[in-house]
Order: sequence, then structure tokens, then C-alpha cells
Amino acid sequence: MSRAYEQLQPYLERVQAFQTARILFEWDNETLAPKEAGPNTSRMVGVLSAEYFSVITDPQVKKLVKECEGEDLGQVEKAIVRELAEEIEKLEKVPAQEYREFSQLVSEGTRIWADARKNKDFHSFAPTLKKLVEYTKKFASYRAKEGQKLYDVLLNDYEKGFDMETLDKFFDTLKSQLVPFLKKVTDSGTEIRDDFLTGDYSEKDQEAIGRIFAEYVGFDFDRGVMAVSAHPFTTNLHNKDVRITTSYNRHVDDSLFSVIHESGHAIYEMGIPDELTQTLVGGGASMGMHESQSRFFENIIGRNQAFWVPVYKKLQEQFPSQLGDVSMDDFVKAINKVEPSLIRTQADELTYSLHVLIRYEIEKMIIEEDLDVEKLPQIWADKYEEYLGVRPKDVAEGVLQDIHWSQGSFGYFPSYALGSAFGAQLYHYMKGQMDFEGLLRAGEIRTIREFLREHIHRYGKLKTSRQMLKEVTGEDFNPQYYVDYLVEKYGELYKIAI
Amino acid sequence: MSRAYEQLQPYLERVQAFQTARILFEWDNETLAPKEAGPNTSRMVGVLSAEYFSVITDPQVKKLVKECEGEDLGQVEKAIVRELAEEIEKLEKVPAQEYREFSQLVSEGTRIWADARKNKDFHSFAPTLKKLVEYTKKFASYRAKEGQKLYDVLLNDYEKGFDMETLDKFFDTLKSQLVPFLKKVTDSGTEIRDDFLTGDYSEKDQEAIGRIFAEYVGFDFDRGVMAVSAHPFTTNLHNKDVRITTSYNRHVDDSLFSVIHESGHAIYEMGIPDELTQTLVGGGASMGMHESQSRFFENIIGRNQAFWVPVYKKLQEQFPSQLGDVSMDDFVKAINKVEPSLIRTQADELTYSLHVLIRYEIEKMIIEEDLDVEKLPQIWADKYEEYLGVRPKDVAEGVLQDIHWSQGSFGYFPSYALGSAFGAQLYHYMKGQMDFEGLLRAGEIRTIREFLREHIHRYGKLKTSRQMLKEVTGEDFNPQYYVDYLVEKYGELYKIAI
Repeated sequence: MSRAYEQLQPYLERVQAFQTARILFEWDNETLAPKEAGPNTSRMVGVLSAEYFSVITDPQVKKLVKECEGEDLGQVEKAIVRELAEEIEKLEKVPAQEYREFSQLVSEGTRIWADARKNKDFHSFAPTLKKLVEYTKKFASYRAKEGQKLYDVLLNDYEKGFDMETLDKFFDTLKSQLVPFLKKVTDSGTEIRDDFLTGDYSEKDQEAIGRIFAEYVGFDFDRGVMAVSAHPFTTNLHNKDVRITTSYNRHVDDSLFSVIHESGHAIYEMGIPDELTQTLVGGGASMGMHESQSRFFENIIGRNQAFWVPVYKKLQEQFPSQLGDVSMDDFVKAINKVEPSLIRTQADELTYSLHVLIRYEIEKMIIEEDLDVEKLPQIWADKYEEYLGVRPKDVAEGVLQDIHWSQGSFGYFPSYALGSAFGAQLYHYMKGQMDFEGLLRAGEIRTIREFLREHIHRYGKLKTSRQMLKEVTGEDFNPQYYVDYLVEKYGELYKIAI
Repeated sequence: MSRAYEQLQPYLERVQAFQTARILFEWDNETLAPKEAGPNTSRMVGVLSAEYFSVITDPQVKKLVKECEGEDLGQVEKAIVRELAEEIEKLEKVPAQEYREFSQLVSEGTRIWADARKNKDFHSFAPTLKKLVEYTKKFASYRAKEGQKLYDVLLNDYEKGFDMETLDKFFDTLKSQLVPFLKKVTDSGTEIRDDFLTGDYSEKDQEAIGRIFAEYVGFDFDRGVMAVSAHPFTTNLHNKDVRITTSYNRHVDDSLFSVIHESGHAIYEMGIPDELTQTLVGGGASMGMHESQSRFFENIIGRNQAFWVPVYKKLQEQFPSQLGDVSMDDFVKAINKVEPSLIRTQADELTYSLHVLIRYEIEKMIIEEDLDVEKLPQIWADKYEEYLGVRPKDVAEGVLQDIHWSQGSFGYFPSYALGSAFGAQLYHYMKGQMDFEGLLRAGEIRTIREFLREHIHRYGKLKTSRQMLKEVTGEDFNPQYYVDYLVEKYGELYKIAI
């Protein structure tokens, strides 16, 4: 009789195949599928999801996982069994029938949300949102360990080891230091010109330069593709098939930095070793660690003055009439311009985490304080006014702007801010190890990328984000690096005495 | 206890989901997937194929199929059970282990074939081909009914009711009439100019006009997409997601007519009713019937003088410098120019079926007469010289040109010629029912398309091609219509007294 771990392999293979198929369907749906394909295709995806569910909750799988505990497993094998055990626990605690109802609600929910956003009518979405919250809380309660708060259960799904206790401290740090700092920036009187970033930038030219920059930062087009979708995203079938999308409008920086951002995600997935890909540990460690890499490439690398030294000429050559007369310094200032705004996905680097702070505070109220969802538009608007100094004129640019809640995703948002903070902590450490800006100026992004690959990417999900951060930087998560990075960078840009 | 037919549904759903996923992976692989994705992705597709196999050969499924025989089923239900029973029979008679070996061989086979073709070296492919033939014959022998010839087993997979007896007559008709007729055409002394079809036709313009013509003949872009691949093909996930590809080169007619051809396939699949799509009978009736529709749109409609009357101007507008000075008459002559050539996929309408005739004769020798595959290059070249008057200078433009045998597909080729003959028989009948050319001249393709939808498409696989042909035209398959159509059309074009 072979070992339990070996007997698990056919199950794991099927899990992987169903997941890979689901990812491909999703990619196809976002990038290419014809308008009317939706309902018929969804039915097939539903069957594949049910197959996935039935393998994970197969009693034989559970039995084998238990038996594996008695076996002498290697590090990778252990981690795979651990991931599988967690997935079993997550799925088996929720009754299949309730999960189906919830899935159905989610699929309707995103449609109702989209309509509500279009019509700027929160009340048509509120009853659905209320039900989504109820299911979410019920499912969290099934899974909560004794004494565990429901929101902590949800947070743990996206970022292990970051519960409310940690996140309260994190967001308090941001709130207490960045909100007053932002006020100084907006009051500084420093004017930054960025009109040249908007204009007659053809889609063809934006795509051409996007490909050049994706490749320049390390996206490997032999192992990946780039396409167009309504909202940029990254996905992958495995480490040799990693896909990014972008979208094009009149603001050239939107597509340029979305491509660099998604390339950061993609480089992470391309850096997963062959031994891990197509296994349960063959992906980025967490949402936050993923976002740390994408925002690292986008902001710490891509919006760095040194980055542009060797390549600004290339951009000018692609857009001679638009940027031929714009100096590199003016360009770099423009791409770092701070402008408190209403839409998270369009936020600048400094204000970004304040958008997330607002969502964190509201999610806590929804999950832990039974907030009446009808009050959300008001609370949302008040917080934007308080932290960012701007107030949405309607729910489309307010509480309805993000898709997440309509998909039943609560606890996801904090990862966006955590990612930026992880990145800043890594950056602080890396600057002590290498001449970071010197490398950028020399066009040596490879060295930076290899550092990230060596210390982060190659571990997949073998370690948690918090573990890796500690092992790499020698220090537990410390949000102060993030605040310091922002205050230093934007203090200089806006000439603020600190 | 519910009826056996109802108990079959979850199995059928899974069959459908695995097939749909496989189709999407294949589409993605041909149109988009990055260079290095192959091996990892194949592994996942292999798992999905194994799942498909295991559902079909599940003893419970077989039991339910048997029980269905005692139930009072509707026409559609009966047809679905019949298709399932046939698939079970096909898969269960071949030992799983042998089938895996064969699949492995096929996946190596296409690679070895591609290399051999590139190197113009038949001998490096011959041993693999020999093995493929052996497996094919062995599998056919497992499935043969008493006294049934092996090649008949294979032919039946692609075209029910067309065995060697029928096909011998069909191809004899072609050989005895078209070979001498072709000689008259090539000896006629009539010169047709077609140099203007080749030149600086940009990919962008070819794509634009391709989309216009696809839509013009009836391709619905709300239910389909068009992309680029090395060789044009059509595939579909269901009736609301039908996909065609084309490729672009310096010959504008190549992409134009490949788009119209694939649109014919696509219109068939878009015409499958909602009740049938996503079931085992929710596709075209057969390979031959499918090809009848694609070649009907390409040739009987698309290369018809009347077709161009309302739309030639559009083509000229897209290509003013290339076609502005070319009259419609000269253009229509050019797209119908006869030129005996070596490559089937580039053959004109008149010589096309002779390429298929050669393959049919050779396949019969391979399967029924134990032909030594080493002799193939010689036999191939001799037949081309005899029937078409041209002789390949190497195996790349000879016996190695088609992928089919390397995929273990024997018995497929005849469908290509049958399709053209089905189309001609339909055309003959339709001309008695409607002013066919008048409709084309008036741009009323819709009426023609609706006739095909009403009499062919909407039945999916509920009837065989032969049944449908008989029911629509009131007559069994009769290849003489095909010969008459060609002789009339090309006799006129080449001014041949008949």
C-alpha cells in the first residue's frame, strides 16, 4: 500500500484541473467571450465548481489528509496537505445547499450592483447587500474558532495572521499620521502640472509602450500574454502561463502604470518554481503579499525618478507630439501628483491607503456592529469628507464604486493597504542591501527582481506573508516604514518642512 | 424514484462541462496561449479528458442508459440517449491502457509530423505513422460488428450511413467525370487574371473587411468572436458562443473566403436551438453536413457572381488602390480561377474534391490493404500526377501536408468532399424553391440562411446527414448534382462546349 500522500495525488490533480479550467473561463469571460455567452457558459462553470467542491469534501480525501499527519513528509508536501486541510475545513463547515444559495445570490448580486451603480440608486442594491452580509456572517460563524470574532475569520482568509488587533494598529498609524500629512500637502501651494498626461494617446501606441515596459520590468512574453478588459487584472493557469490585462483611455499614465502594476503580480507568479506550480501552494502567499509586489513595481520602482533615467527617452519617442517637450523631471512630478479623489482605483500613491482605511472601518461596522446597510451612503460620504476632504455627489462615486461586496467579499480590502506597507518595509531593507536607485538608473531592474524572487516569489505559499517579511527584513511587520516612505517622498515633492 | 433519464442528467451535465472546458483550452491554445504554456496546460487537459472518460464508462451510466430503453422518451431525449450509448460503446470497447498509449502517441505524433514536414523527411515520421495505423486498426477491430470492414467502422464515426460501398460510387463519379473535365479546363486556353488578389493588403484592412463580410452572411457578433490562428477553424462552447479564426497573408482572397467558410460553420452552430445546445445532440449532424454548410457559404454563395453585385463596392472602398480599377466581373473570375495545385487547403472549388479522392483511395489501401506506409510518398505523387497533372517536389507539399493522420484521424477526409456534394444537392433543390441568385443580388442572404436553419441547423444531431438530405430534397444522396454544378459553372467560365 502506498503512502496516504501518494494516494492523495489523483484528487489533487483533479482539484488543480477544475481550478485551472475555472480560471480560464473567467479570463475568457473578462477578455473575449461574446455578449450573449454568459448564462450558458456559467452553467458549465457551475458544474466544474461543484466537481471541485465534491473532490475537496470527499470523505476519502479527509481520511487521507488525517493519515498524512502520521507520515514523514517533506516541507512542500506538508504545506500542500496543510492547504488542503484548510480548504476542506472551509468548505465542509458550510452546508452545500446554503453555499449554492449564496453562490446564486452572488451571481445575481453583481448584476444588481452594476445596475444600481449605473442608476446611482443604492436602495435597489441594499436588500441584496443585506442578504450577502447575513450569509457572510453565518458562514463565518460556522467557521469561527471559540471566541474568534467573525471579522477575524474573514480577514484570515485573505491574510493569515492579520486580525483586527494588528489591523487596528496599522490603520491607526495611517490615520494619525497620513491624514494630517495629506492636509499639509494639499495646503502646500505647490502646483504640479499634469495636463500632458491626458490627450490623444492612441490605443495602438499605448499598447506598444505597455509591452515595452512590461518586458523592461521583467514580464516574460514567452510565458505570458497581455490583453484588454474593462478593469485591469492578472491571472494565471500556472507559472508558464501568466496573463495580464489593461484598458486604454485618454490618460496615458492609467494604462502605463496598470501594466507595470499587473506585471508586478505576474512576475510573482512567473517566479513560482516548477516544483510548486500546479499544486495548492503554487501561488502567491497571500492577497497582501501579491499586492506588495504589484505596488512595489508600480510605485516604488515605476514612479521613482531613478527608474525613468534610462527609459524616459523611449516614452518620448513613442509619443513625440505629446511628450517631446516635457522634461523628465516634469513627467516624474506629474505621475506622482497628489490629488485627493473619490475613486480608490484612480487614487494616487499617497491617498490610496486612506481609501482602504475607510473601507476597513466600515466593514468592521458591518460585520461586528450590525450596521444597518441603509446607512452606508451617508457614513461613506462622511468618512471621505473627514479623511480626504472630498465628498461624493452620488453613490456611483461613493459606496457603490467597488464590486467586492456584491461578490460577497468582505475582509479583502485591507490587503490592498497591507501590500503597500509590506512593499515599503521591503524597500527600506533592500536599500540597506543594494544601491537601489543606482540600479534603477543603470537599468538593472533584474537585480531587484532577483532579490524579490529569491526571498519571496520562490516560496509560493510555503510561508505566510508575515513569516517571509520577518525572515527577509529581520523584523516583524512594521507600518511605520510605509508612513516614513510616503512622508519623505511627498514631503520632498511638495516642499514640506517636516 | 425518478425516471432513469432524469437520473442521467447529472452525468450528462458533467460530460458537457468537461467537453466545454476541453474546447476552451483548445481554442486558447490555438489563438492565444504563450509559447511555453504547453506541457503544464496539457497535463490539466489530460485530467479533464480522463474525467470525461470515467463518466462515460461509469457502470451506473450504462445501467441507466439500458433502463431508458423501457421509458417513454421524447424525440430529443431518445436521441441524447442514443448518442450517449454510442459514445459508451466507442470508449468501453477500447481498453483504457491502450487508449492512453494511443493518446500519448498522438501527442508525440503531431510533433514528429511537424518536424518531418519541416525537414521534408518522411522516414522520420513513417515509424510513428505505422504505429498510429496499427492502433487505429486494432481499435476499429474491437468496435467492428460482425463482418464489418475496418475502414467502414472509421468512416461511420464521421458520417453515419456512408460506407465504402456508397463512397466508392461517389468518388468514381467524381473521378470519371471531373478528371477529364479538368483536363478540358486546363487545355481551354482561357486565361484568367488574378494578380490583383495578391499584394499589399494590410492585416488591419483584411480584418475589417472580414468582419463586415462575416456579419453580412449572418455571423452574429453578439454570439461569437473572431480571432487569428495559424490555420482557420471554427469551434463553439454552445449556440451563444461560437468562434471562428482566420489568418492573414498577402492573398486577400485567402482570409476573405476563409472567413466566409468559417462563418458557414458558425452559422450552423448558432442555428442550433436552445433546447438542444449543451446536450449530446447540440451540434452539427456530422462532419460532412458541417462542411456542406461552410462550403455552401464559401463557394455557392461567396464565389457566386450574384453575391458580389450589392457588395463589391464595399470591398473596393476598403482597398481602393488594389481593387479600385478592377471590375466586378474580373474580380469574380479571379476568385474562381482554376489551377491544379498540390495543397488541398489552397485548392480551388473545381479541383478540391480530387485532393480528397486521392486521400480516400490511399486510406482504403492503408486500412484495408495493409499498404506499407513507406510507399506513401511515391503513391501520393503518382496519384497527384494522374488526377491533377502536378507532382510534388517533396513530401512537405505531398503526403505530409495534412495533420490528420498524425492525429490518428483516418476516415475524416471523405467528409470534405461529401460536404461539397451535399451542398450542391441542396443548392439544386433550393433553386427550385426560390430565386437564389435574385436573392443574392438583392442582398437577401437572410432568406437563404433561414432556409438552411429551418431545414438543417435546427435539428442538430437529431437526424443523420443522409436523412436530412433526403427529407429536404426529396431524394437520397446523389453526387451527380455536384458534378453538374461544377461542370456548368466552370464550363461557362472557361468557355467549354459540353
